[in-house]
Amino acid sequence: MSKDAYTPHPDRLLPTDPAVREIARGLYERMRDQPIISPHGHVDPRLLLDDEPFRDPTSLFITPDHYVNRLMFSRGVDLADLGVGRGPLDEADSRTAWRLLAEHWHAYAGTPSRLWIEHEFHEVFGLETVLSPATADDMYDAIAEKLSRPEFRPRALFERFGIQVLATTDDPVDDLAPHTALAEDASFTGSVIPTFRPDKYLEPARPDFRELTEALGEAAGEDTSTYDGYTEAMRRRRLYFRDHGAVSTDHAHTDPGTTRLPVEDARRLYLQAREGSIAAADATALRRHLLADQARMAADDGLVMTLHPAVLRNHHQGIFDSFGPDVGFDIPLPVDYVRGVQPMLNDVGLDPNFRTVLFTIDETVFSREIAPLAGVYPSVYAGAPWWFIDAPDAILRYRRAVSETIGYSRTSGFIDDTRAFCSIPARHDMARRLDANHLSTLVAEHRMRHEDAAAIAESVPDQQPREVFKLPSAGTGTGEDQS
Amino acid sequence: MSKDAYTPHPDRLLPTDPAVREIARGLYERMRDQPIISPHGHVDPRLLLDDEPFRDPTSLFITPDHYVNRLMFSRGVDLADLGVGRGPLDEADSRTAWRLLAEHWHAYAGTPSRLWIEHEFHEVFGLETVLSPATADDMYDAIAEKLSRPEFRPRALFERFGIQVLATTDDPVDDLAPHTALAEDASFTGSVIPTFRPDKYLEPARPDFRELTEALGEAAGEDTSTYDGYTEAMRRRRLYFRDHGAVSTDHAHTDPGTTRLPVEDARRLYLQAREGSIAAADATALRRHLLADQARMAADDGLVMTLHPAVLRNHHQGIFDSFGPDVGFDIPLPVDYVRGVQPMLNDVGLDPNFRTVLFTIDETVFSREIAPLAGVYPSVYAGAPWWFIDAPDAILRYRRAVSETIGYSRTSGFIDDTRAFCSIPARHDMARRLDANHLSTLVAEHRMRHEDAAAIAESVPDQQPREVFKLPSAGTGTGEDQS
Amino acid sequence: MSKDAYTPHPDRLLPTDPAVREIARGLYERMRDQPIISPHGHVDPRLLLDDEPFRDPTSLFITPDHYVNRLMFSRGVDLADLGVGRGPLDEADSRTAWRLLAEHWHAYAGTPSRLWIEHEFHEVFGLETVLSPATADDMYDAIAEKLSRPEFRPRALFERFGIQVLATTDDPVDDLAPHTALAEDASFTGSVIPTFRPDKYLEPARPDFRELTEALGEAAGEDTSTYDGYTEAMRRRRLYFRDHGAVSTDHAHTDPGTTRLPVEDARRLYLQAREGSIAAADATALRRHLLADQARMAADDGLVMTLHPAVLRNHHQGIFDSFGPDVGFDIPLPVDYVRGVQPMLNDVGLDPNFRTVLFTIDETVFSREIAPLAGVYPSVYAGAPWWFIDAPDAILRYRRAVSETIGYSRTSGFIDDTRAFCSIPARHDMARRLDANHLSTLVAEHRMRHEDAAAIAESVPDQQPREVFKLPSAGTGTGEDQS
Repeated sequence: MSKDAYTPHPDRLLPTDPAVREIARGLYERMRDQPIISPHGHVDPRLLLDDEPFRDPTSLFITPDHYVNRLMFSRGVDLADLGVGRGPLDEADSRTAWRLLAEHWHAYAGTPSRLWIEHEFHEVFGLETVLSPATADDMYDAIAEKLSRPEFRPRALFERFGIQVLATTDDPVDDLAPHTALAEDASFTGSVIPTFRPDKYLEPARPDFRELTEALGEAAGEDTSTYDGYTEAMRRRRLYFRDHGAVSTDHAHTDPGTTRLPVEDARRLYLQAREGSIAAADATALRRHLLADQARMAADDGLVMTLHPAVLRNHHQGIFDSFGPDVGFDIPLPVDYVRGVQPMLNDVGLDPNFRTVLFTIDETVFSREIAPLAGVYPSVYAGAPWWFIDAPDAILRYRRAVSETIGYSRTSGFIDDTRAFCSIPARHDMARRLDANHLSTLVAEHRMRHEDAAAIAESVPDQQPREVFKLPSAGTGTGEDQS
Repeated sequence: MSKDAYTPHPDRLLPTDPAVREIARGLYERMRDQPIISPHGHVDPRLLLDDEPFRDPTSLFITPDHYVNRLMFSRGVDLADLGVGRGPLDEADSRTAWRLLAEHWHAYAGTPSRLWIEHEFHEVFGLETVLSPATADDMYDAIAEKLSRPEFRPRALFERFGIQVLATTDDPVDDLAPHTALAEDASFTGSVIPTFRPDKYLEPARPDFRELTEALGEAAGEDTSTYDGYTEAMRRRRLYFRDHGAVSTDHAHTDPGTTRLPVEDARRLYLQAREGSIAAADATALRRHLLADQARMAADDGLVMTLHPAVLRNHHQGIFDSFGPDVGFDIPLPVDYVRGVQPMLNDVGLDPNFRTVLFTIDETVFSREIAPLAGVYPSVYAGAPWWFIDAPDAILRYRRAVSETIGYSRTSGFIDDTRAFCSIPARHDMARRLDANHLSTLVAEHRMRHEDAAAIAESVPDQQPREVFKLPSAGTGTGEDQS
Repeated sequence: MSKDAYTPHPDRLLPTDPAVREIARGLYERMRDQPIISPHGHVDPRLLLDDEPFRDPTSLFITPDHYVNRLMFSRGVDLADLGVGRGPLDEADSRTAWRLLAEHWHAYAGTPSRLWIEHEFHEVFGLETVLSPATADDMYDAIAEKLSRPEFRPRALFERFGIQVLATTDDPVDDLAPHTALAEDASFTGSVIPTFRPDKYLEPARPDFRELTEALGEAAGEDTSTYDGYTEAMRRRRLYFRDHGAVSTDHAHTDPGTTRLPVEDARRLYLQAREGSIAAADATALRRHLLADQARMAADDGLVMTLHPAVLRNHHQGIFDSFGPDVGFDIPLPVDYVRGVQPMLNDVGLDPNFRTVLFTIDETVFSREIAPLAGVYPSVYAGAPWWFIDAPDAILRYRRAVSETIGYSRTSGFIDDTRAFCSIPARHDMARRLDANHLSTLVAEHRMRHEDAAAIAESVPDQQPREVFKLPSAGTGTGEDQS
């Protein structure tokens, strides 16, 4: 066997103790082939509408993946050499970027990015070697060759991956034409649904707040020069999204504050924000009020409200100026969920039509805040680990931190949150293995009956996210009470 | 064997590795049959004074247990259907509540509540089935039948459980008549001692602060219209409690701040608080001063000061209005112990008569704050995990977080903190198993000699809490230096 | 075998699962005999210059080690009885202190201090008994006898320990004469290098700020009556240190804030600080500005900037008054790195000549802040666990928290940070065992190829700190790309 030979081990991510691993294998078996439900992510719907072949290995694996870019950048590689901030690369530059990845691949050992990509290399592209400077060109060529085949086009992969529901993330003013076209396309049977992400329209401190609200008004056919018009426009766009298949909204502000203002204050501050004269503290206060409004709308229209707060975006101004957002310079912050969502939960937290999922990258709130909230409010679910902590040890820490308070039934199910389409099955597979890992340990420590662990394993991949995100059930019955 | 058959496994909560489990078993054996010392909890002393039979399975296992209620509520069950906020349930309603628990029992898989209750089902009531809709009625009947027997009355169980000391939690104005009666009852040999919990009398922002301080004054025979009178009343009531067996006081404010005010400010603000005119910030400042006063009194009277801070109580106003406190809507907050207790520890932290135990539900302070404080101040002990984190993985995280700085000798010993009387042995048993788990791993990793682990196991259940809470030693000698 | 017999187990700190332990042994083998690189610590360089025999076991193991003292103090031992705050102890007092340690030794079970000291007892002094009241005198005598031999003098131990680089921590006004003398001493081949630690000169609120800055000016030959002169003096002293072998600076303020002031404000506040009239908030603002200045200087002179922030020093005033600093009363605080270092990283974070290592005792920032920063900024490295968390479980938590984002290559390598010279090999050995532990688990869980783990093991002890701290490479080549 060549020293370059490598395929991911079938038992990867399962516990090392042989007896426990045996239990874990059985639990994983129950999950492995279930369909993929992806209720939150960042794949562009045009990818599936157009169904064009992926251009090359670099644009598939490197350029758009800030997990991959950021570590190479920290090791001295120029982002531009990875294609960031540039248009499509030519063959030579694409191959150069690929060789850079190969050169730095050893530094990814132990990271989820490497596990995901090696899963993709093997299970999507059938490769059986490890990436290294010695194998880089062969692997590049092998992937490039495959990408030209029909069975590696996005729709074919969508089907092969077993994706049943794929949610995208969309701007409130988007007309959702790709979603409509996909839904009307009889040749495509998957479900690709939009997600309403109004973040920037809720940030009154933005210099372009007036332009944004104008655009929102235009999309909604509403005069947004006042707070009341703005609110009505939001309400309409949410309904537009819901009518086009959306089941949830996504909100990612610096904090999850939801304190309401007296309506006359909201009206006044809104006008100031439109004029660009709002003070910083007032802009924060208005943003929190607007988020509280979104919660009220959610209680009306039934869209599930997902919160992804507390990230300091674009930590380095110069990088932002050169390369824009989403290139790895977003750094997590501590989050205060207990006080942040209190006004919102006092307002609509017991409304049977309201539902919210609390995500975090600040692990300290799993046991202290999120599990206690999700373990008492019927409207609250504990979101799966996300972004920096969407990783094996962190996922196990999450399960160990929240399960003792809320079991599995008050958790969101796995969320891949990715723009890297080919990594979706790898990410879901990792999550399933880790749930098998966690559950098998509970069984082996006689903290959970095997029957209960098996029932959880059956329900976690598919039924749980369908229930949390109000997606139609796959088979017969709703199974509401089995997880 | 019926598919409903179930008994807790004798090796539950021990490590899975066979060699390590063998060590753990031996350590657990040393702890298993030791008496129960419960220096902090919420059992009503009248339970033991009256010694009436428990009414029914629902009032025993469900209605008063907010761990159980909160998860069902989050899954859509009405609190009233579980008996919360109602008087005694009739047979039909009690059984209905029981069936609800059975229906949702699968969702408790992996939670400590389920482990405790299954321990009780089996070891207290001798049941050998798992709770489910199919078994619910039979199990209800079996428990109900047992409850009518003399050997299931509280005093009989107290003895059977091996409880030697049970501390209750009591209002400063309480006359402690049940404690006195129990102490004078020659037929009852257990030790049921009160705990002084003055929280509400230290909250100057309360609208009923005047009434509370009046009541305190009446109990103490002291005019509490001034700060000085209030202080003297407190001092007297503490002594009253000490004279009735109390060894500790309990303090659970939003933060553990202990900054003192100039005495003239305290006097002035106290008058404002009595008049209901105190500003919010001043009320907080005065509360911290009053807590600092409690520390001084503790240095005088020797009562151990336990702190349980940083919980946002009654997170939902509507639930509080309908059902009152303690129904699962208390959510933990981050805590700042380092600065919070600094004034108090500078004041009395080196006083040999002063002792404090720092509890938390904010796990982040175990390694960062509590262990460093308990590892240098002779008066400070690290409190055992409590409430949401009184659970297997969290208890192991606690041991792993604090032991590397302070070993076991600067920790409080286990505190059950429960109002669920029948769960006391289950909780202590779980804690012992987890200490065996932790210690056995240290031994197996050659980080601790087996002899040292064995000595710790011998001392942790009984001797350690006796020492920390200044309880008289069980046998001969104080054993002060063996843990 | 006597019941007192004890030697540390060769497999200590490796995983318990036999198959995993086998992998760990192999990885540890690759690390065990590598040289010791100690780029941050507190050994006095005169120890090696003078090469006097250590005085006695107590002054070697107890008096200067606040890890050891603090736990005994918390257990009721007077610091003075351990020699703290006194001059050299006579034989009787030294032996008394030693017996106190023996008496309390059981309470150190499971702490890293005990593991380190037992390593030293065995591997440095060849002892094969456990410390206890029964063995205390014999062990004292055996160590005392060894200390009188030439092969137990500091230089002999330095060589025997395999130390290649030992960084001390030094005052900016220090003339570094011992370093110079050592460097010029042909009979001593080790590398003992200074570290520039200007903390107190950056604290404008200190009552002795004027005296400090005067002294700085004198050392630099610069008039420090103005901010500009102060800045120039700092710049010169840094160069002086660099010219004498320093590779890094060390900064330990209450927070890691680096917000710059307009230069005219800095000048004005500096004058106020010199006059002792600066307001507290202004002093903090100026301190952050001065730290930001240090970062600019670091980008100029290339000294690596290490940050050790967020400790509340001297928590108890009375202890400080009696015994001074560094006696165990420093307690960690939460740290905000994301916002703290943002101004600095926006200023010089992409400068190829700038490098910073972020240390913490607040574990919450490992996954939330430090790994995300070190995983994108080329200038940032994640510092190894330090002080209270320089301990087995905490070190594993660190690896598990940061490796999923940044692998091993963006971490600092181990830092012993000790003034206990004889504990240096014990501490490095522990770190190597724990890295073997962590890596072997990744291999056994099929999350990392054995080849990759082996390569990391090869590079972590020696090559990694050399690279991070810009130390000359030990052998041939820089090996820059192998870790």
